[in-house]
Amino acid sequence: MKVQPVRGTRDFYPEDMAFREWLLERWRQASRRAGFVEVDGPELEPLELYTDKSGPEIAEQLYWLDDKSGRRLALRPEFTPTLARMIAARQASLPEPVRWFNISRCFRYERAQRGRLREFFQWNVDLAGVEGEIADAECIAVAVDGLRGVGLTARDVEVRINDRRLLAALVRHLGVAEDRVPQVFGILDKRDKVPAETLGVMMAEAGLAAAQRQGLARILAWKDLADIDARELATPEVAAAAESLRRLFGFLAAYGIAEWCRFDIGVVRGLAYYTGPVWEVHDLGGEFRAIFGGGRYDRLLGELGAKAMPACGFGCGDAVLGLLLDDRGLRPALAAAAEFFVASAAGDNWTDILRVVRHLRGRGRATQFDLKGGSLKRQMKKAAEAAARYVVIVGDELSAAGAVTLRDMQSGEQRLVPLDALGG
Amino acid sequence: MKVQPVRGTRDFYPEDMAFREWLLERWRQASRRAGFVEVDGPELEPLELYTDKSGPEIAEQLYWLDDKSGRRLALRPEFTPTLARMIAARQASLPEPVRWFNISRCFRYERAQRGRLREFFQWNVDLAGVEGEIADAECIAVAVDGLRGVGLTARDVEVRINDRRLLAALVRHLGVAEDRVPQVFGILDKRDKVPAETLGVMMAEAGLAAAQRQGLARILAWKDLADIDARELATPEVAAAAESLRRLFGFLAAYGIAEWCRFDIGVVRGLAYYTGPVWEVHDLGGEFRAIFGGGRYDRLLGELGAKAMPACGFGCGDAVLGLLLDDRGLRPALAAAAEFFVASAAGDNWTDILRVVRHLRGRGRATQFDLKGGSLKRQMKKAAEAAARYVVIVGDELSAAGAVTLRDMQSGEQRLVPLDALGG
Repeated sequence: MKVQPVRGTRDFYPEDMAFREWLLERWRQASRRAGFVEVDGPELEPLELYTDKSGPEIAEQLYWLDDKSGRRLALRPEFTPTLARMIAARQASLPEPVRWFNISRCFRYERAQRGRLREFFQWNVDLAGVEGEIADAECIAVAVDGLRGVGLTARDVEVRINDRRLLAALVRHLGVAEDRVPQVFGILDKRDKVPAETLGVMMAEAGLAAAQRQGLARILAWKDLADIDARELATPEVAAAAESLRRLFGFLAAYGIAEWCRFDIGVVRGLAYYTGPVWEVHDLGGEFRAIFGGGRYDRLLGELGAKAMPACGFGCGDAVLGLLLDDRGLRPALAAAAEFFVASAAGDNWTDILRVVRHLRGRGRATQFDLKGGSLKRQMKKAAEAAARYVVIVGDELSAAGAVTLRDMQSGEQRLVPLDALGG
Repeated sequence: MKVQPVRGTRDFYPEDMAFREWLLERWRQASRRAGFVEVDGPELEPLELYTDKSGPEIAEQLYWLDDKSGRRLALRPEFTPTLARMIAARQASLPEPVRWFNISRCFRYERAQRGRLREFFQWNVDLAGVEGEIADAECIAVAVDGLRGVGLTARDVEVRINDRRLLAALVRHLGVAEDRVPQVFGILDKRDKVPAETLGVMMAEAGLAAAQRQGLARILAWKDLADIDARELATPEVAAAAESLRRLFGFLAAYGIAEWCRFDIGVVRGLAYYTGPVWEVHDLGGEFRAIFGGGRYDRLLGELGAKAMPACGFGCGDAVLGLLLDDRGLRPALAAAAEFFVASAAGDNWTDILRVVRHLRGRGRATQFDLKGGSLKRQMKKAAEAAARYVVIVGDELSAAGAVTLRDMQSGEQRLVPLDALGG
C-alpha cells in the first residue's frame, strides 16, 4: 500500500532539511543580533483564540477538530494570538519591553499553490510595551537584517510601509461610514490579487458611491509621503498619521535601511487586529506574494489580558522566501558529509572497528562505518558515498602498535597515526 | 477574555525554550556524531498511515479531523510511519543504509499526566537497510551517547533489551496459538502499569490455561540471558533468538556500553510493527515511565513500499527525560543575556544610539537599547534587566572624536574607545 502525503505539506529529505535548518538559523541569528529571545507555544490552540481576534477570513482557513470534551481546537495558522495569550498570562511579571521571537510550524487550510502551502514555517518577531515608532522601526530593521542574512539586497526586495490610521482617516474623509472601513480595508487587501474592475465592483457593492471610488483611486495613486500634503485631505487625523509615518521613516534612515523602504498607501494587511503602521516585504520584480507581513497591534494584548499593552511585530513564511532565493540563485549548496569513516582491512573485524569508532565519536567527531562489513573495496565505496573527509583503515597495527592508517580523501595521502592522536 | 491553553500542551517562555533548545541540540549532536542526517515530514498525515500499521492502541490516541474533501487526517503521534512512507517513496534512489534522525513535535490524545503530554517532542533515530544485530547496537549506542550528552550515567538509567522473536517462540512453546501471541504481547506490555493479579486475570481472559500462565510467570522471572539455556525451553527457534541476542550484547560490549545494558525478557513495546530486538530505557529508580523505546521493524518498509527493507530505530520523548533531569539536578541554568546595551547620556539621541547599534549588530553582536529613551539612570536599569555584558554610553565624544564609553558590567570598569574598534 502506498500512502500519499497530504497536499500542501512537505517531506524534508536530508537536502531539504539542510536548507530549512540553514534558513531558520539565519532567522535566529537576525533575531538574536537585535536582542530578541526565542519562545514558542502549542500548535493546538482553542479555536476561539483565532476567530475572535483575527477576523473572519482566517477562521475559514483553519484546520480544526472537536476533542472528546467538545472543545473545538485549531492548528495554529499564525503565532501572534498565542504570543498575546502568553504575554497576557504573565503580564504582571514580564520585564518590559517584551522582545520575543518565534519560529513556528503553522497550518492554513487554503488552496495549495506556488508559495502557499498548508503547512509551513513562519518567523515571528514581536516587541511589546513600546508605543513609539522606534519600536516599529526596530522590527523592520530586524526583518531587513534577516533579508541581508540570506543574501538578498535592496535591489531584490523592498519594504512597503503604510499606516492604517492614515488610510482610515482618508477613507472616512471621503465620507465612508466608520463601520464600513474594515470592509473597505478587506477589499483593498485584495488589490494585488484581483483585476482593477473587480475591485471597483466590490467597492460599489460595499456601498461606495462613484465619487468615493474615484477619490480612493486618486489616493491609491500616491507614490510618496509628500503627496499627502499636496492634496486637500490634510485633516487633523490625516496630518497626525502622516507625521507619525514621517517619524518612522526618519528612524529607518537612522538604522541605515532607508533604501530598502518605501511608503505604499495601498498596504493594508488582511488581519483585523492591526491598529497603526502596517508593512509588507515584496520582491521588486513583483513575481511573488508578500514575503513578510507586519504591523502594530496595540489592542490585541489588552483584549486577551488584564491591561492594554502596545505591541508590534512581523511574520515571514519560508515558502515564498525559498522560491525567491531559488529565483536569485541564492539557495546554498549544503552537503551532509561524514567526517570520519572507519574501515577494516579484515572486513568485519567489529571489535577493532568499534574501538576506533568509539574513540572518534568520544572526541565529538561524526563517524560512520560499513554496517555490513564487506570487503575493503566495498567499504571504501561506502566511505565515498558518505562523502567522508577521512577514512581510517584498521589493520594489524592496531593491536600490535595502537596505530591506524589515516587516509585524507581530498589529497589521497595516507599515513600511519597512533589511535590516541586521532580526532584531535 | 482570557483564553486557556489546551490541556497537555505547553507554553515555552524564554527559560523553557532555552532548555528545550539545549535538549534538542544534544539530541542533534549525538545523532550527528554517529553520522545520522536530519529529516522531517509533515505533522498532518493521512490517518490510515497509523491505523494500518501501528495497531489499534495508537488509533484510539490520535487527534484526527476530516478535511473538506472527506479525507481523514491525523496529527502525527510518532515519526516512524512517516519515515517509512518517505523511504518507500524514494526506495530506488536512496543510498543504503539510510541513516536518518528526526526531531518531531508529536501529538497523542491520551490522559495528560506526569511525563505524558498531549503535545511533545520526540527524538527519532532510524537505520534502514541492515539486517545484522550491529545495526540494533548502533542505534542503542546513539541512545546511550544521547543520555551521556545530557549528563546521565549508567547509575541513573539502563537499557532493557529483549527480542520479540524470543518471547514469541517461548509463548508458542507454552502452547499458546500463533494468533493469540499479539494479544499476549499487549497484556505483557502493561506489566509495569497494572497489578500482577490484574495481569493474571487478563491472561486468563485471553484464553491462557493455568499451566500456561505459570510457565509465563516463570519465564518473566528470568534475570539473565544465561537463564534461557538453564530451562527446558531450548527449541531451535528459542535457541536462534537467544543466539541473536547474545550477538547483540557482544556488539554492545564492543561499543563500551555493556554497563548501561541488560537483558529483560519482559520488554515487549506496545506498537504492533516490531519484529526483532525491542528495548526501552528506564531510570534505575523505577520512578518514571520509559524514556526511550526502540526496536527492529523489518516488515514496515516493505508494507508501505515497493520492496522489503530491514530497519531499526528508536524514539525518545522530551517530557519524561526533562522530569528525570530535574530529579537529578541536571537541568542546566540557561540565562538569555544581551551582549551589548547602547545607552545615551542625552536620553533619546536616536541618531547617535542607532549609529552605534547598527555598528555592533553589523559585527554580529547581540545589541539592545532602551526603546523608550529615558534618563541615563533608567537606561542603565534596563541594561541590568537585560543582563547586558557591556554597556556602551554614547555622548558628545561620538560626533567630536568618533569615540564612545565602554562599560564592562562585570568589572565595573569603563573606558573611552573608538567606535571602529568596538565589537571586534
